[in-house]
Amino acid sequence: MQIALLLFPGITPLDAVGPYEVLQRMPETSIRFVAKEPGAMSDRDGGMQLVADASFDDVARADLLLVPGGFGTRALIDDVVTLDWIRSVDAATDWTTSVCTGSLLLAAAGLLDGRPATTHWLHRDLLRELGAVPTEQRVVTDGKYVTAAGVSAGIDMALELVARIHGADLAQSIQLAIEYDPRPPFDSGSPDKAPAEIVDRLRRAAATR
Amino acid sequence: MQIALLLFPGITPLDAVGPYEVLQRMPETSIRFVAKEPGAMSDRDGGMQLVADASFDDVARADLLLVPGGFGTRALIDDVVTLDWIRSVDAATDWTTSVCTGSLLLAAAGLLDGRPATTHWLHRDLLRELGAVPTEQRVVTDGKYVTAAGVSAGIDMALELVARIHGADLAQSIQLAIEYDPRPPFDSGSPDKAPAEIVDRLRRAAATR
Repeated sequence: MQIALLLFPGITPLDAVGPYEVLQRMPETSIRFVAKEPGAMSDRDGGMQLVADASFDDVARADLLLVPGGFGTRALIDDVVTLDWIRSVDAATDWTTSVCTGSLLLAAAGLLDGRPATTHWLHRDLLRELGAVPTEQRVVTDGKYVTAAGVSAGIDMALELVARIHGADLAQSIQLAIEYDPRPPFDSGSPDKAPAEIVDRLRRAAATR
Repeated sequence: MQIALLLFPGITPLDAVGPYEVLQRMPETSIRFVAKEPGAMSDRDGGMQLVADASFDDVARADLLLVPGGFGTRALIDDVVTLDWIRSVDAATDWTTSVCTGSLLLAAAGLLDGRPATTHWLHRDLLRELGAVPTEQRVVTDGKYVTAAGVSAGIDMALELVARIHGADLAQSIQLAIEYDPRPPFDSGSPDKAPAEIVDRLRRAAATR
């Protein structure tokens, strides 16, 4: 299986690395790290850099396309070259997937028109404006289009993909290999569970950015 | 807060990126990506590369040291230069932490002698041989030494660290920002939960590597 993983400046690293860590454990899988301009891609915040070693021209097709999110997606929503590449690769994929605000790019490319999809909880309105039908599930599957909610949801999405592609046995084996037995110290991971004042604070911060 | 994150060839990217994504959201925090020989560090398996932009000489101290794991730790268990750097940075940290087999390096450096600690479930015997007292908790705290179990456990560890350093409010806020409301499709993330034949298969594979 050939996987194309889109990288860009302003990516949220965990959006890419969560599903990467699961998907790369599938047999006979090769992953390309693709960017408009290859090189080291920084996130906006903490200075981590992930390396893209392939250009759009280098990777014209893939069985699975993975588009992660991050603040850098805003600059790409109307980037014709990036959206054209996404559409072109999507034309031959078995699976077209996103994590977090990566779905904004799939939607901007016209791939989610009228489809149920998800994104980071703070950006569901923008996903709707771009033509998709936001839902509150953590992972949304509509045919070959699979979108995950914010950041960490990509791990859950990737395990679901492995189960669909190779079956439950391999998905369970990979879950055990990455010891994914989550025990967050709080139950604050979604806006319907977190304290209301924390939800409000994040909404206000996002609105002023 | 100054954080030093050790990178090396053969790192497991999620070991580093999980806690990174949480810790970099603390206020007034700067993170250095440190390696014996700076550059792009590949994991063994899937080809992802993380960039180290600082050498051991560049980063002589830190408030928090984070040592991730991966197959590359085996080559470092008797690497005097790396272990010396770990010991030297540890001398002035407030927190010395690891994810997965990163704890093997803390133990090899002599920092976990007689201390309760954890590692990837497949490598508890080696952690014991190196002087620590392996436990089955997902995150083990012993004074300033905080060790996490395999790969994905670093996210839980980092949220616990944020709660200890800045309080529950910020930890909950970061959990919501990364939408960490885990919903793995299976309950197979630890050896006491996964099907026995899958546990056995991973044990056999690890023994022959």
